[in-house]
Amino acid sequence: MERIYIKDLKDHIGKEVTIAGWVDIRRDHGKLIFLDLRDRTGKVQMVALPNHPEAGETASKVRSEWVIEVRGVVNKRPDRMVKEGLNGDLEIEMLGGSILSEAVELPFDKTADINLDTYLDNLPLTLRNEKARAVFKVQATIINAFRTFLTGKGFTEFQAPKLIGEDAEGGANSFDVEYFGHTAHLAQSPQLYKQIMVGVFERVFSTGNVYRAEKHSTTRHVNEYTSLDIEMGFIKDHTDIMQMENDILAHIMKELRATCSAEFALMGAEIPSVPEKIPALKLREAQQIIKAEQGIDCSSEPDLEPAHERFLCEYAKKKWDSDFIFVTHFPVSKRPFYTYEDEADLGYTKGADLLFRGIEITTLAQRIHQYDKLVTAMENKKLNPEKFAFYLQAFKYGMPPHGGFGLGLERLTAKLLGLENVKQATLFPRDMNRIDNLLSK
Amino acid sequence: MERIYIKDLKDHIGKEVTIAGWVDIRRDHGKLIFLDLRDRTGKVQMVALPNHPEAGETASKVRSEWVIEVRGVVNKRPDRMVKEGLNGDLEIEMLGGSILSEAVELPFDKTADINLDTYLDNLPLTLRNEKARAVFKVQATIINAFRTFLTGKGFTEFQAPKLIGEDAEGGANSFDVEYFGHTAHLAQSPQLYKQIMVGVFERVFSTGNVYRAEKHSTTRHVNEYTSLDIEMGFIKDHTDIMQMENDILAHIMKELRATCSAEFALMGAEIPSVPEKIPALKLREAQQIIKAEQGIDCSSEPDLEPAHERFLCEYAKKKWDSDFIFVTHFPVSKRPFYTYEDEADLGYTKGADLLFRGIEITTLAQRIHQYDKLVTAMENKKLNPEKFAFYLQAFKYGMPPHGGFGLGLERLTAKLLGLENVKQATLFPRDMNRIDNLLSK
Repeated sequence: MERIYIKDLKDHIGKEVTIAGWVDIRRDHGKLIFLDLRDRTGKVQMVALPNHPEAGETASKVRSEWVIEVRGVVNKRPDRMVKEGLNGDLEIEMLGGSILSEAVELPFDKTADINLDTYLDNLPLTLRNEKARAVFKVQATIINAFRTFLTGKGFTEFQAPKLIGEDAEGGANSFDVEYFGHTAHLAQSPQLYKQIMVGVFERVFSTGNVYRAEKHSTTRHVNEYTSLDIEMGFIKDHTDIMQMENDILAHIMKELRATCSAEFALMGAEIPSVPEKIPALKLREAQQIIKAEQGIDCSSEPDLEPAHERFLCEYAKKKWDSDFIFVTHFPVSKRPFYTYEDEADLGYTKGADLLFRGIEITTLAQRIHQYDKLVTAMENKKLNPEKFAFYLQAFKYGMPPHGGFGLGLERLTAKLLGLENVKQATLFPRDMNRIDNLLSK
Repeated sequence: MERIYIKDLKDHIGKEVTIAGWVDIRRDHGKLIFLDLRDRTGKVQMVALPNHPEAGETASKVRSEWVIEVRGVVNKRPDRMVKEGLNGDLEIEMLGGSILSEAVELPFDKTADINLDTYLDNLPLTLRNEKARAVFKVQATIINAFRTFLTGKGFTEFQAPKLIGEDAEGGANSFDVEYFGHTAHLAQSPQLYKQIMVGVFERVFSTGNVYRAEKHSTTRHVNEYTSLDIEMGFIKDHTDIMQMENDILAHIMKELRATCSAEFALMGAEIPSVPEKIPALKLREAQQIIKAEQGIDCSSEPDLEPAHERFLCEYAKKKWDSDFIFVTHFPVSKRPFYTYEDEADLGYTKGADLLFRGIEITTLAQRIHQYDKLVTAMENKKLNPEKFAFYLQAFKYGMPPHGGFGLGLERLTAKLLGLENVKQATLFPRDMNRIDNLLSK
């Protein structure tokens, strides 16, 4: 008999069905045994009654996480003990069942609060938790919404290489790869390639892993993450990129509202609304506000401290009722060589960081598109243009004004769902101490 | 004035518009200068007439690949010299223009046949060719169709790590990464992770880079490529995976037919039709056919030679009018440890290679889902189960029968478009001798 998914049981009331999945919880009440069965579409309670000995035999053997196939009748729940969630008003009366796969006893109670290390040590099991599945369903929805929106706006997806020769950021924070007797690197971003691709398709995006060999041990950093990258040509200036990101985020939230409301409810998190125009401040304006409101003079700093990012987000929420705020015009000295200097505000860049719920989630900018200016900018940052000859070809042969941004998928997921640590939004996080297992010291 | 895309010019006949893009070709006829302008949506011919001196000034300066913005009137072509392709019956009468970016003289004629090394040395320029753009538009369409189809079938996308500790294939062909004083590897496939994810979402897919440190120098191999991976639980056997791949390919071809017919016409390539059920032969049956038809006895071989793959594809085309053929039941000894042995055909696996136009494009299989069997299979392949303790947790805690496949995006693109070398379908190909530039010896 064909397998029915749990979400479709409501269309089979009173009928015999075959369902399959994992035993989520087993409750032994002596003569009655209850099993909650979980498949990819939901959960349902099943009961093994004494008058079906075959069912009883299966039900008495199985434990949490055993994989079973069950034949049973779909009943309306016989009492008013309706449970919350999907299929709370249905129950399967087991007629028979077969065991597809056994499981050993779980190392900890499924409903217990476990610490992060235990969670990470046991991911093949702990990812099956309802909350972990909610996190990664939300993540899949975000990346899909990102791609769908951009494809609709005439962007072309491209596959960026991760194995690179020279690093755009100067190489200090890149991992070394032994490559046929040479030293290659893992890319910190698809930056140089997405700019090259503007010359090919004008508007491009790429989604893939990027690598930072930073010796961080914070709640905000992992060493391998997924970057959602766009780059677009024929822009007026960086504000075109800001508006494009604004529109992308609005679309992502719309999709999340349409398909992930249950997941947000489960996590106790709220899907933010995105203003039509996210408020923006120049860094210097932001610093003046920090000074006026907090009495802290950070006006000589070239960047924002984490505490200042948090304050500015609270400020934007209070003043403009926005969960998002752009901070523009960071100093040229603190931005990568390819960042465009504002002719009307010399020393400062045509770019922005996007802050969301206390943290930077994007850096965006217009890029230098003129060959000579770009070579000079490299030299100013003590980079050797000869090492970037491949990339520079794009600019030798004509490039339009362009810009783009990178958005960390895991950090956005974590912030949206109110997770304390970005590792909870990273499927198999890599950090200084861990690749799946803890690394030996 | 707002920029109009070239594809939309037909809606503006007789009107003044602003367009922007790259000068594709410039033809100087003395008093008249013709420019073909290219944007991401198409090409159009423009003419600078003597009565518009501002236009003439711009037109006289610019050369191939200069980036310009042009103000002009959209005219129906004044003669019957209608060119092929988009907008062949339109012409822009230039009123004025501004130069957004200059370009140096091109190193070779745009229309010249160049060899592969020259093509690769100059990718930021050569990728702008009409044919190269067609290849990577087709590639973007394939990957999008792959994801869309699977999302509709209840698959969840996940982000697979590429930095790994132990390698599923034994590590002989993996690149080493210096990781905070440890040696990590670049994954050859997301195999172990996609199996773990079956325990979480039942049906998953992942698209991303994979790495093979093989010292190949062939037309079929690159060292970094994009793998389209699926894994699904609750299968009957490997034939469920075969049918799923069959359906995915049919969907991809449908999408290509809907959106990329012009690109296939340009490349002189044909979009294959996909049979409802792709023909399948056991390896031993295939070897018998090779013996009968070609007089070559390869029946003691555990695998197919490239020449045999080509022959079988010709055979399938002749016998079943199919561009695709599955070869099933390779010996257990030649397949990875996690491959399921066929109980009804001991010594052989429940899996297949998919051949297309002379070459293998997929390996698929049912996987071992029982913990004890999997540990024994590892030991049989001289792998240490302790090193795979993380992965093995998935099987300790209950896994359904499952299987999946990996499909190389670049190889599929190359074969579909009839490209001689997979490097022509790899955006920035990495091989033994090249990462963007040739590596020094």
